[in-house]
Amino acid sequence: MAMAELSAPKTTSTFLNSSSRLRLSSKLHLSNHFRHLLLPPLHTAPNSKISCSVSQNSQAPVAVQENGLVKTKKECYGVFCLTYDLKAEEQTKSWKKLINIAVSGAAGMISNHLLFKLASGAVFGPDQPIALKLLGSERSIQALEGVAMELEDSLFPLLREVDIGTDPYEIFQDVEWAILIGAKPRGPGMERADLLDINGQIFAEQGKALNKVASPDVKVLVVGNPCNTNALICLKNAPNIPAKNFHALTRLDENRAKCQLALKAGVFYDKVSNMTIWGNHSTTQVPDFLNAKINGVPVKEVITDHKWLEEGFTESVQKRGGLLIQKWGRSSAASTAVSIVDAIKSLVTPTPEGDWFSTGVYTDGNPYGIEEGLVFSMPCRSKGDGDYELVKDVEIDDYLRNRIAKSEAELLAEKRCVAHLTGEGIAYCDLGPVDTMLPGEV
Amino acid sequence: MAMAELSAPKTTSTFLNSSSRLRLSSKLHLSNHFRHLLLPPLHTAPNSKISCSVSQNSQAPVAVQENGLVKTKKECYGVFCLTYDLKAEEQTKSWKKLINIAVSGAAGMISNHLLFKLASGAVFGPDQPIALKLLGSERSIQALEGVAMELEDSLFPLLREVDIGTDPYEIFQDVEWAILIGAKPRGPGMERADLLDINGQIFAEQGKALNKVASPDVKVLVVGNPCNTNALICLKNAPNIPAKNFHALTRLDENRAKCQLALKAGVFYDKVSNMTIWGNHSTTQVPDFLNAKINGVPVKEVITDHKWLEEGFTESVQKRGGLLIQKWGRSSAASTAVSIVDAIKSLVTPTPEGDWFSTGVYTDGNPYGIEEGLVFSMPCRSKGDGDYELVKDVEIDDYLRNRIAKSEAELLAEKRCVAHLTGEGIAYCDLGPVDTMLPGEV
Repeated sequence: MAMAELSAPKTTSTFLNSSSRLRLSSKLHLSNHFRHLLLPPLHTAPNSKISCSVSQNSQAPVAVQENGLVKTKKECYGVFCLTYDLKAEEQTKSWKKLINIAVSGAAGMISNHLLFKLASGAVFGPDQPIALKLLGSERSIQALEGVAMELEDSLFPLLREVDIGTDPYEIFQDVEWAILIGAKPRGPGMERADLLDINGQIFAEQGKALNKVASPDVKVLVVGNPCNTNALICLKNAPNIPAKNFHALTRLDENRAKCQLALKAGVFYDKVSNMTIWGNHSTTQVPDFLNAKINGVPVKEVITDHKWLEEGFTESVQKRGGLLIQKWGRSSAASTAVSIVDAIKSLVTPTPEGDWFSTGVYTDGNPYGIEEGLVFSMPCRSKGDGDYELVKDVEIDDYLRNRIAKSEAELLAEKRCVAHLTGEGIAYCDLGPVDTMLPGEV
Repeated sequence: MAMAELSAPKTTSTFLNSSSRLRLSSKLHLSNHFRHLLLPPLHTAPNSKISCSVSQNSQAPVAVQENGLVKTKKECYGVFCLTYDLKAEEQTKSWKKLINIAVSGAAGMISNHLLFKLASGAVFGPDQPIALKLLGSERSIQALEGVAMELEDSLFPLLREVDIGTDPYEIFQDVEWAILIGAKPRGPGMERADLLDINGQIFAEQGKALNKVASPDVKVLVVGNPCNTNALICLKNAPNIPAKNFHALTRLDENRAKCQLALKAGVFYDKVSNMTIWGNHSTTQVPDFLNAKINGVPVKEVITDHKWLEEGFTESVQKRGGLLIQKWGRSSAASTAVSIVDAIKSLVTPTPEGDWFSTGVYTDGNPYGIEEGLVFSMPCRSKGDGDYELVKDVEIDDYLRNRIAKSEAELLAEKRCVAHLTGEGIAYCDLGPVDTMLPGEV
């Protein structure tokens, strides 16, 4: 920071809406009308949001009155509660307008990597100030405070606001991006149908909340698994948001697939392009070696071991997560966060000429004959405006068509199993005997 | 990646020194001659380093022969074993020469944040290719493999090589930067003198290794605690490396101090400058509110609660780590990694006009009358060439002088306690009854 650029000291601080922001609120937003099948209603604790403000020389606990209840506000992430006129300062007046980014599962390990990347400017660029809206569970609220403290201590100039809370109707207010990571892991003995229902309810609720309070053009990236069907549930509960704005993360699969092809070919991974992951983020996913290229040449011309391509390659991609847990003792939070960054950057920067990226998107109007009304990973390109278009001229041979059909069938079965959450009637679960969850992933 | 820029596919891959790199080595480097005091000799397992290579269409386990022993190499981080001519390609020919960066404690949580920042280009810039040399313990070697796998899956274009191993004499070969994070945490009932000795032995060994195999101008940043005295031990064991090249990390303290002043003043943290941490990274550290500025004005003119400055401020900085553990359940790995990035960037980018940063450096020739032969945090500036100069005209009043003297006395006591590790005779430990370790830090 150049000293010459520093303005005179402010003698007083300005707070916008300080009275409305300095509070502990306790509101109830339930979406019970789909909660009638398979499981008893979940216990729904009153959601709460902590927001805060400081005034000069005042760090004492603040008593807050709301709904006739007095609570003591013990901690305040004051720095992020201040409001600023970025246009008034030399260093920040050329910055873009602040954007609001919501992250759910914000106290988890993936978020612990992602949030610091978002705050540093590594995702949206060095002239894009951001506000982080952190959604957690009741159980994680203390950990969320810890995350906010570490964000404070990191002094990121672009990070101007941090809110933490457990109510999506508050946290999603006016957000332009929502990265939905939080989901329950499958417990011992839990059937896949149960997992679909439990997590589906979370994403139904969050879809409703986004529909009601988010920016009308919010972009939503679902990471919590099963992410394709969670994304579908989310978009079906948010009819006012374009379905095209919802994504399911298959970028880690794409990145792993590129790396495995590079390893096999003995080239560096930056030589692999045009990598598509088709279908579901599950073991039915189809990493497409037919259309991928190495140094601009079709993979099958570079890697002559076609038996490996057809039989070993997909498995090498899918087993990566499980292998990593074996080695490292925990799941791949760091590389998942990197792939989330990649997925967002692919939407906010123009796709390089001739290349594409994979993302799970709504199938309506797709040129590949994939059943409409699903969230399916396909090759996409972007002009860098947050939107994308499907790549339309990708070759599909019989091998690929057959594999894609299996993933499509799986997603259709998942869809029938969550019909009660998408407003499409009574759920019917027949997911088959085979467990199609990726090893080592929750 | 623009397709037009892709070159024709290679039909064969080139490997430099593939025979020397494709191996599991097992060498013994001991530094026993200082291990004669206070503790029985540590059990020293044979150190090992795993390095690897791949050839086209060959992913099967590789049998490696060395020292008459045949081992089976089960995993290969092949992508990082390939060698490249960066000058031959359009996209990379303008890049700087590759630098080697060693990180110890590489399987730990701080490293798990730091490594991905280094690899992404966030520290050394978008045109600086890097090689990461990951040092771990025998116990962590599997976890290190997991880290290398996640780095592979992240497809960072700038990350060209990853080596993992447990022998500093191999991992530190030709490194231009060494970030020394690994240290043992204090176990229950362990005296501070024991901790100094145990960790001191690690840093003595690593100093010797750096002295022997690192780049002669290697920059060393010690993070593992007690970091000032560890840095002193390290530099005393590396007489061929300029003592000026060794740093102890006090940047997290500086960042926290800036945040606490901002909170108190009700301003955003980017308004706080000229923040010095004096002395030891311990509870005797001195966050300097006399010379720090808010919006270019001395802090004492902006914050009129001088009682808080003298009594509450330092504690608010020091208790941050412990408070965070309370909230978040683990130590502040993410913000520590951010502060390491800040510390490195302060040395490789020019310091803004009129400002400075804090880092623990060797005291020889300091203008503040601090005893020579210590590693002491002081205000510094850099031209961005990796080197620094002390800021010489900082005002020290009686309050500050008194506080600085206490931290100096503590460091002198620590130094006497590790005399057996610095080649200065027989250790004498009298660290006093007060525990001066920062709460919540290992």
